[in-house]
Amino acid sequence: MPNPTAALLVIGDEILSGRTRDANMYHLAQELTKHGIDLKEVRVVSDDADAITAAVKALSAGYEHVFTSGGIGPTHDDITADCVAAAFGAPIDVRDDARAVLEAHYDKQGIELNDARLRMARIPQGATLIDNPVSAAPGFSLQNVHVMAGVPSIFQAMVESLLPTLTGGAPIQSVTLRITRGEGDIAGPLGRLASEYPDLSFGSYPFIQNGAYGANVVIRGPDAAALETARGKLAALFEGDTA
Amino acid sequence: MPNPTAALLVIGDEILSGRTRDANMYHLAQELTKHGIDLKEVRVVSDDADAITAAVKALSAGYEHVFTSGGIGPTHDDITADCVAAAFGAPIDVRDDARAVLEAHYDKQGIELNDARLRMARIPQGATLIDNPVSAAPGFSLQNVHVMAGVPSIFQAMVESLLPTLTGGAPIQSVTLRITRGEGDIAGPLGRLASEYPDLSFGSYPFIQNGAYGANVVIRGPDAAALETARGKLAALFEGDTA
Repeated sequence: MPNPTAALLVIGDEILSGRTRDANMYHLAQELTKHGIDLKEVRVVSDDADAITAAVKALSAGYEHVFTSGGIGPTHDDITADCVAAAFGAPIDVRDDARAVLEAHYDKQGIELNDARLRMARIPQGATLIDNPVSAAPGFSLQNVHVMAGVPSIFQAMVESLLPTLTGGAPIQSVTLRITRGEGDIAGPLGRLASEYPDLSFGSYPFIQNGAYGANVVIRGPDAAALETARGKLAALFEGDTA
Repeated sequence: MPNPTAALLVIGDEILSGRTRDANMYHLAQELTKHGIDLKEVRVVSDDADAITAAVKALSAGYEHVFTSGGIGPTHDDITADCVAAAFGAPIDVRDDARAVLEAHYDKQGIELNDARLRMARIPQGATLIDNPVSAAPGFSLQNVHVMAGVPSIFQAMVESLLPTLTGGAPIQSVTLRITRGEGDIAGPLGRLASEYPDLSFGSYPFIQNGAYGANVVIRGPDAAALETARGKLAALFEGDTA
């Protein structure tokens, strides 16, 4: 059975303007690979209701899981929860379970649960809360869309809360061979080897280091023994230039 | 006149598997902001012909410019040029101008222009070459799609070659106020201020530093004087908690 597929939707003008370097894509990609869920697409859109709603609709129709990052705080530009609700036609309002989580958190710190903070308890009807051990305000899963915070430490904590509840497949296995030859020399022999192993995927990722060209060849597939055999054959083709 | 809009399409399994952290989105976002082009969307797709072709079609129809990153090397998994040609129904083959660029480069180094390297001279009919001062193999612009390499140093050099040829708008101006208060305290006053200035965009980007909550509020707009006025009003609202 193939692994479940997934997409990530990053919401935030600060990424698109170049103000902030996104960290959540890299983190989620690694966690999903370990969990046996295939991340197939990422989109980054601005804090715009139409753009968010359209992306949620398209991705939730195309993949088994959609993860979102950003736009669930208390300020006026935090509109993700409303957009996800709109994408599914679900009613949304302050929900008692989410309000109770926030009340407990702020009471303990002697902070007022004001109107702005209460916005973070707006959760669509039918959604399941995602635990936020960092700052309390919960994420949620509505159908196949998992809505999480944009602040990396909170995003990571929510991913850790959520992933064990999702059914993963076999962790995707891979082996890497570093070849210190230009890709133009690697391409021919690599292409022929790849055609001998139609069940494996061969990727070549070039680099330049100290002015010298090379490539990391990554072989992926479900069968560890087949990966090692293919890696051995590739290494033999470039003897003396591998690591 | 509003600034031109743009999207970035990153092509590469290595990003989606978490093996590599993308660097090109962050770089391009900053360069486009300086050049007065509004980056509105980013997509990351795998090395899959259908996924690449569909994304090129959708983005080129939706935005004034599309930039792509990755998949234009000599190996079997480098299929971006063919996919972009397919998206526009343009014929593609080895082109004399691109071949001449590669010949000159490899001759000088005494390296053979083999079949694999020659694949990098496959350029769609009607495309304009993008200069690659790092490793010679050119990118290209076909209609409103600008095809560039994935290796960050080459991507950056191609962006530098390309951007001066594109008409930008006014650089988007912004001012930032760092407020060391929780977003729940910031949200109310910030929302009211934002509604007073409908021509400006106010974004709040929360952070946690040494266990303390805060937010960077970024105000964007075309008029530097209006930005400073709004920033001053916001600073007055949170006197003693700003930087």
